[in-house]
Amino acid sequence: MARMKAAIFVDKNRIVLDEKPIPEIGPLDALIRITTTTICGTDIHILKGEYPVEKGLTIGHEPVGVIEKLGSEVKGFKEGQRVIAGAITPSGYSNACLCGCGSQDGPGTRHGFKATGGWKFGNTIDGAQAEYLRVNDASANLCAIPDSLTDEQVLMCPDIMSTGFSGAERGKVKIGDAVVVWALGPIGLCAVAGAKLCGASVIIGVDTVPARMEMAKKLGATHVVDFKAGNAVEEIMRITDGRGVDVSIEALGQQATFEACMRVLRPGGTLSSLGVYSQDLRIPLDAFHAGLGDIDIVSGLCPGGKERMRRLLNVLESGAVDLRLLVTHTYSLDKIEEAYELFASQRDGVMKIAIKTGA
Amino acid sequence: MARMKAAIFVDKNRIVLDEKPIPEIGPLDALIRITTTTICGTDIHILKGEYPVEKGLTIGHEPVGVIEKLGSEVKGFKEGQRVIAGAITPSGYSNACLCGCGSQDGPGTRHGFKATGGWKFGNTIDGAQAEYLRVNDASANLCAIPDSLTDEQVLMCPDIMSTGFSGAERGKVKIGDAVVVWALGPIGLCAVAGAKLCGASVIIGVDTVPARMEMAKKLGATHVVDFKAGNAVEEIMRITDGRGVDVSIEALGQQATFEACMRVLRPGGTLSSLGVYSQDLRIPLDAFHAGLGDIDIVSGLCPGGKERMRRLLNVLESGAVDLRLLVTHTYSLDKIEEAYELFASQRDGVMKIAIKTGA
Amino acid sequence: MARMKAAIFVDKNRIVLDEKPIPEIGPLDALIRITTTTICGTDIHILKGEYPVEKGLTIGHEPVGVIEKLGSEVKGFKEGQRVIAGAITPSGYSNACLCGCGSQDGPGTRHGFKATGGWKFGNTIDGAQAEYLRVNDASANLCAIPDSLTDEQVLMCPDIMSTGFSGAERGKVKIGDAVVVWALGPIGLCAVAGAKLCGASVIIGVDTVPARMEMAKKLGATHVVDFKAGNAVEEIMRITDGRGVDVSIEALGQQATFEACMRVLRPGGTLSSLGVYSQDLRIPLDAFHAGLGDIDIVSGLCPGGKERMRRLLNVLESGAVDLRLLVTHTYSLDKIEEAYELFASQRDGVMKIAIKTGA
Amino acid sequence: MARMKAAIFVDKNRIVLDEKPIPEIGPLDALIRITTTTICGTDIHILKGEYPVEKGLTIGHEPVGVIEKLGSEVKGFKEGQRVIAGAITPSGYSNACLCGCGSQDGPGTRHGFKATGGWKFGNTIDGAQAEYLRVNDASANLCAIPDSLTDEQVLMCPDIMSTGFSGAERGKVKIGDAVVVWALGPIGLCAVAGAKLCGASVIIGVDTVPARMEMAKKLGATHVVDFKAGNAVEEIMRITDGRGVDVSIEALGQQATFEACMRVLRPGGTLSSLGVYSQDLRIPLDAFHAGLGDIDIVSGLCPGGKERMRRLLNVLESGAVDLRLLVTHTYSLDKIEEAYELFASQRDGVMKIAIKTGA
Repeated sequence: MARMKAAIFVDKNRIVLDEKPIPEIGPLDALIRITTTTICGTDIHILKGEYPVEKGLTIGHEPVGVIEKLGSEVKGFKEGQRVIAGAITPSGYSNACLCGCGSQDGPGTRHGFKATGGWKFGNTIDGAQAEYLRVNDASANLCAIPDSLTDEQVLMCPDIMSTGFSGAERGKVKIGDAVVVWALGPIGLCAVAGAKLCGASVIIGVDTVPARMEMAKKLGATHVVDFKAGNAVEEIMRITDGRGVDVSIEALGQQATFEACMRVLRPGGTLSSLGVYSQDLRIPLDAFHAGLGDIDIVSGLCPGGKERMRRLLNVLESGAVDLRLLVTHTYSLDKIEEAYELFASQRDGVMKIAIKTGA
Repeated sequence: MARMKAAIFVDKNRIVLDEKPIPEIGPLDALIRITTTTICGTDIHILKGEYPVEKGLTIGHEPVGVIEKLGSEVKGFKEGQRVIAGAITPSGYSNACLCGCGSQDGPGTRHGFKATGGWKFGNTIDGAQAEYLRVNDASANLCAIPDSLTDEQVLMCPDIMSTGFSGAERGKVKIGDAVVVWALGPIGLCAVAGAKLCGASVIIGVDTVPARMEMAKKLGATHVVDFKAGNAVEEIMRITDGRGVDVSIEALGQQATFEACMRVLRPGGTLSSLGVYSQDLRIPLDAFHAGLGDIDIVSGLCPGGKERMRRLLNVLESGAVDLRLLVTHTYSLDKIEEAYELFASQRDGVMKIAIKTGA
Repeated sequence: MARMKAAIFVDKNRIVLDEKPIPEIGPLDALIRITTTTICGTDIHILKGEYPVEKGLTIGHEPVGVIEKLGSEVKGFKEGQRVIAGAITPSGYSNACLCGCGSQDGPGTRHGFKATGGWKFGNTIDGAQAEYLRVNDASANLCAIPDSLTDEQVLMCPDIMSTGFSGAERGKVKIGDAVVVWALGPIGLCAVAGAKLCGASVIIGVDTVPARMEMAKKLGATHVVDFKAGNAVEEIMRITDGRGVDVSIEALGQQATFEACMRVLRPGGTLSSLGVYSQDLRIPLDAFHAGLGDIDIVSGLCPGGKERMRRLLNVLESGAVDLRLLVTHTYSLDKIEEAYELFASQRDGVMKIAIKTGA
Repeated sequence: MARMKAAIFVDKNRIVLDEKPIPEIGPLDALIRITTTTICGTDIHILKGEYPVEKGLTIGHEPVGVIEKLGSEVKGFKEGQRVIAGAITPSGYSNACLCGCGSQDGPGTRHGFKATGGWKFGNTIDGAQAEYLRVNDASANLCAIPDSLTDEQVLMCPDIMSTGFSGAERGKVKIGDAVVVWALGPIGLCAVAGAKLCGASVIIGVDTVPARMEMAKKLGATHVVDFKAGNAVEEIMRITDGRGVDVSIEALGQQATFEACMRVLRPGGTLSSLGVYSQDLRIPLDAFHAGLGDIDIVSGLCPGGKERMRRLLNVLESGAVDLRLLVTHTYSLDKIEEAYELFASQRDGVMKIAIKTGA
């Protein structure tokens, strides 16, 4: 059986590049030869043992590649096509999918819903940091990449761009809104870009790292605030002339930002949560106006599926957003362990690393 | 090869019961042994040659039955289970499906959309007026029937109930709305029931047949208006004290009702169209307020898929709606030609006919 | 200057019936002669000093009465008309009102938003537990009562019915949903009725008092669960066959119910919060699926304004809901102190008390 | 009584600059000293007698100016403030306003709705082409202009910008959509800008005038199509690779564009109508898929009110859109008759004319 290289979770603090068989595919699957992939913040949680996955699992959920082989029942694609798939690969046929909630896909469950069930790659099935990837339910998840776009241009589509944009979309950002984004990592930066695409006219980015604040400006932030320089909540109230913001986007996953996020909302505003939390969250009574302030909190997992990918590729093709500035480093798959080390340490201004296979 | 009885479109004005092979199924399909089905108004259009289908096609799109056989890739069901499937059987994986528009499903098309493409049974593939039915994309379309519900209770789910309810849902009927439904055939009656379920407090049913108006009252109409006795538009304006209605539902498919439908809307109201039209439609300038009245026109095909079916079964199980009164006649499949004759002639107060197989 | 009787907040634990001048009105106001009003749970919070109001304020925000006098600029009403006004009386012209957020009305603020600013009666201006009431911004807030409805029938409109219904509306309850309502006081019972009006097919009421559970069944609950008899969360999961509910409505305002409320949601479900909280709230990490479960939390204050009142009156007129069963006791205004004592102690199965003026 | 200059409708084909008294104001009104205004296409319809108004009426509905005097009940403004008001001036307190439908404002009607009732200036009350303007319901309609924006920058807010944007907003344009705008007059150009602000990635402008197509590109069009050079429908299908568009915006008001507008929609798409029609409209059966294509038609009048104006000013302040290129000519009020002549003849590449008072 042919073998391939893959980044495998061996144990806590050990993701190693090793060999394993090239995946077999079933009638609904596709086999993708990966050309470019990347490492996500979530992968670092896996590495550190903070998010449990099975030992031996291939990590990674951001695939760009070429169709090597198609299952007998896959429709609409052909071998050799250059494609992308989302980090979230909904089956298309679960009850969750059929009511527009594919990120909570539960095809094998009694009721068709499973919390975060849409996230499969590098979580419940082998992932994309490898030479080859089996894509489940390929008819619903493959999306052809236009020739005009390079791998690096589309590399953010599977997760970061889809997630970040969803922060603005779920918050229902609309023309003329004031929006703040808390934390300007890759997802927060994409939330900034998403808020701009939704028509926000005041977009405030909050972080502590000057380089990230600069990137935020390039992606649409009209203001940036340093979380450590003075009181960010007060500064945002000042920028909005005392009114507060319509939508406040949490992109870090911590109590301090969640709380500040709520404190800058105007009555009737929406807290849109993108962060992955590791502790119970506290809603401050005053900022929640005791439950009477028409405050909404919306949360969610990255949207996936081929129609989502198609739309994101369209945005990139239009030139409205260019996310290449997020790709700060490039490594070959052979050196992915080094890439993990760099990414985990957040050294050298790393934002996202393009992992290139030689295949 | 085993054979079965089926109602087959032979030629204009000829749907006959004949024998054909029991369908073969593929990996994504299921074979259903039909226990009960019915004839739809659309089938009469097919019969008369007004809606073109291929000669030799089995007609019918409202299946109730038992799983005889499952394709190898179908998940979540077992043979022998009592199930229903919608008239519309979305693939689940087309771009249309993935953005919540499964009735316009185009899995085999270049872009994943096809007008009315979700309607397959008795239209583009063999239908349900037979002893056996192949259900495409079964994982997305089969829905188990609770033991507490009889075939007759659930027989309206696949089409009539789903379509009628969608008239209220698409029109965004809400608590306290005034709603009018134009024409009280099976779909209009289900639109009345749907308007009630959405919280409308004034529900006006318009028809000319007293028995249908009586049924409308049983299903939630607070008022009925005879379209032929005086001016229905004026009468509706009188009932609403001059205000007009929030949502006006067209359930006939003719210019006269479409136009009256718009004339009773308050400014800012919504015309929800369920009718199948056979001619260009005219929007009267005055009723449309020259384009400035915030008038919306929404239209659509019956929603399908297993999650939709599950919800409709839940409604029936709750007892909130009972549609058995729509089933005015029962015939065995052997006598389906007689049933067609009765239904086409609209004699004997026929609303819907239960077709029972002996199988 | 003519004087009237009014229930006045004197000090913590002292609301007394006393005399004060009949209110003067300005050009935008109306003077209403109260015929019937009631006491709200919030008034008990005021009584106990838990919610601060100015000493000397007339309490009460649920007015039914007759127009005594109209300000010069009030349009669309005439003196002698029988009317109702909501507990929330939006100005109509603040930025909050003009974007559909009238409960957060801030006409006098810099930006037009003020948290809970729509609630004025018995909070920031004199209230309805008196012989006369000044209604601010009367053009936007008065609503004529149909002759067919008694004071007792409409007495829940200003607050309880509007609030309870909003729990279902904000949660976007739709046809076929499973819904649970936590705590069956007057607001929870109205949330049950609201869920039914929105088309829910499974409606579970949770409380500990058998009489309230009985009322819930009369208003549409399909199941009731005793919070103290076993594990309510498990029982709800059992009722929903392991799926969880689409919308979970918190109607008590405590951590235990808020938390249980979230635990019974299916992934992608909505927690609709009606409770008035007195402490920070904790969101359990697991029930929130670490932020990745597509869980939404929506909250809000009672919707007001004359269009809201008109719709609620329409619902009552249609007979779809009858809330008279909530009015368990009747007192004259002269004995309102006794009524407060009864209501505060929650003795004698009291739900709501009709306070009748002799005026 | 002090007098002022005003452009007055005298008779068919005669709008003349004459003197009339400076308006008196009531308690809810404001008197604005106009600094800049403009002429709208609708004014030309009035001029030609195609849209009937009372003889003697001052024309114009796009005011920029300074508060001269405030009615006693107006809150939140002060004399001397530089302000704008929308073409549509909702009362804030009608039933229409209270349910978010202020363009159909009917404060003086029995039910609170009146078709196009929100449009008052230069229609049912004296308008803005004058030295002074009475603004009805000033608390709901005045909006302060930031010092950083000139009159010319904000001159499109009252009508053109608000209307054009609403074409994209009502059509629910979202990230990644393909949108086409039919006719690139001032409203169509603003619809292009609105589609971009809503995140569309393909924006096709259709017209016949090269200069307008150039402007469309500057405002966000990714493609332009000449309506007269070949078949525009086919060209749009080609641009969208056969898929059709998600939202098609009609901005001319004619049968030919309305029909073409529908023909380029994908199944499930939305026709957003901005045009003012002068004849009944025909919906082609095939493009409407006989009522089964999930096609929606949405229409509406320009949104007004101070919160709308605030948002539009925010958009301008952010620099995301610059509409100064639409102001192709400037005239003094004294020469408004010449300006009418130019605008009516559509000579000299005129788009919008700034009318400056010397006051």
